[in-house]
Amino acid sequence: MLSLAALVLRLRVSGCQGRRRSIATVVSGNRTSKLVRERLQKEVEKMRSQFSGFRPGLLVLQVGDRDDSNLYISSKLKAAAEVLQNIRSANANVSIHGLIVQLPLDSVNHIDTQLITNAVAPDKDVDGLSCINAGKLSRGDLTDCFLPCTPNGCMELIRQTGVSVAGKHAVVIGRSKIVGAPMHDLLLWNHATVTTCHSQTRDLPLQVGRADILVVGAGRAEMVRGDWLKEGAVVIDCGINQVPDETKASGKRVVGDVHYASANQRAGFITPVPGGVGPMTVAMLMQNTVQSAQRFLQNQKH
Amino acid sequence: MLSLAALVLRLRVSGCQGRRRSIATVVSGNRTSKLVRERLQKEVEKMRSQFSGFRPGLLVLQVGDRDDSNLYISSKLKAAAEVLQNIRSANANVSIHGLIVQLPLDSVNHIDTQLITNAVAPDKDVDGLSCINAGKLSRGDLTDCFLPCTPNGCMELIRQTGVSVAGKHAVVIGRSKIVGAPMHDLLLWNHATVTTCHSQTRDLPLQVGRADILVVGAGRAEMVRGDWLKEGAVVIDCGINQVPDETKASGKRVVGDVHYASANQRAGFITPVPGGVGPMTVAMLMQNTVQSAQRFLQNQKH
Repeated sequence: MLSLAALVLRLRVSGCQGRRRSIATVVSGNRTSKLVRERLQKEVEKMRSQFSGFRPGLLVLQVGDRDDSNLYISSKLKAAAEVLQNIRSANANVSIHGLIVQLPLDSVNHIDTQLITNAVAPDKDVDGLSCINAGKLSRGDLTDCFLPCTPNGCMELIRQTGVSVAGKHAVVIGRSKIVGAPMHDLLLWNHATVTTCHSQTRDLPLQVGRADILVVGAGRAEMVRGDWLKEGAVVIDCGINQVPDETKASGKRVVGDVHYASANQRAGFITPVPGGVGPMTVAMLMQNTVQSAQRFLQNQKH
Repeated sequence: MLSLAALVLRLRVSGCQGRRRSIATVVSGNRTSKLVRERLQKEVEKMRSQFSGFRPGLLVLQVGDRDDSNLYISSKLKAAAEVLQNIRSANANVSIHGLIVQLPLDSVNHIDTQLITNAVAPDKDVDGLSCINAGKLSRGDLTDCFLPCTPNGCMELIRQTGVSVAGKHAVVIGRSKIVGAPMHDLLLWNHATVTTCHSQTRDLPLQVGRADILVVGAGRAEMVRGDWLKEGAVVIDCGINQVPDETKASGKRVVGDVHYASANQRAGFITPVPGGVGPMTVAMLMQNTVQSAQRFLQNQKH
């Protein structure tokens, strides 16, 4: 069956991560996301005092779940229709300002992901993954759309370094809808010269070596080695990979797409995994939801 | 006033351009576009015989004209409303399969270009410039959209060279909605490693020197010099610039964004200006219109 989970906007404060010993400065997503959440908390409080009791509402629509998948939805069409009906209802609900559909769709009957993603009303698409949002972002109309959360979090981390983006050579590894492709757009429209690399790039170490700013969303554990990097580069690692580790009780540990131990000897700035891009993604989703709620209130005034 | 010009789909055969003396092979847009138009003519004839008298219909909507601009439309809102009304009527007209709005909008009252462009029904947007089309193209859903005419013409010319795109390093100069940005997308999703350069790129000659395939849509006469190029590169020039030339009766001549005389000594393949990308843009508009008509007939069957 379909399960709907209404996520309450939590603005909790998490721990602040200190610097590790390395040549590179560690850009902490935990610390930066905390700053963002503190700012958002103030904005939410302001909205609540101005419009008594108002709260930004985010709905997370989850299709299926691990324990009780939608085995009972007999046909593909019925499954899609049920999801679409939930989306339309949320689109029409004035107390919901942000609506996201958890991907991948966990359904025994294949549902067209594009169809579902594009059914979300553009003014509630806080994931920024619909065609219309992607079209605006890719063509430089950034003020008129929602910025996808992971790339927007990466931009926030790059800003934290104090390194300006305009005129720099940025390299993005990966071209996924969620990370690589919108990351390219954000760097480009912040006026970097941008190179996109991917599985068919032949000379990846050479391309990486040209990057003043490197963003990696490849999904391959520790693929980028320290000796590939340009000295002093800003390195943003979007990877979350589990690798075997017998020294851990769980038998595994989480690593990024960058080989951290060698990269932090050569980069100027580097994000850790975990505690880098991950918490920023969540903070940016909150930011988009607050922004959507603010736009809603603004439109109510007029 | 607004003037509507219905452009008849012409499939005329134009002259074939021979090779010039140079190291580079000249990639003729005249010749290639002729091949495309011949192929389209056959497809149109097939449609006409299968569906008696059927003709693909393309409507070119022009706002204002040089002689009689819309001086008489008193307000901005009225001007936009009149254009939108024409677009809606064309969207609903089953004998029109392609609809393009000439840009820039020639109006004394500023009209929001994005609003107008996005009013065109996605299934008639043969220019491929709407948000929805751009969103699909930029995220790799190429089979589900119309490919913008100039970049698609460039891809066709690159194919003519026989040089494969996958894994090559492509460099695009320019990030406009019409040329640079969609060109990046097409090269990326044909699996090139793509670098986008623009006015804020600091080391343009260095970036250009890395290109196996170079597409220039910068709008600056002869800015790319031959000695910047990688030996043997494929050079596609989208520029159309008028420069003074006292030897011509008109006092001027048309040049591209590439300095042809030096570039053809170093490139492997090069497109001339005129007779390169220009005629391909027109041929691709015809191709999109024919494709749209074919989809229309396909949907009629079901």
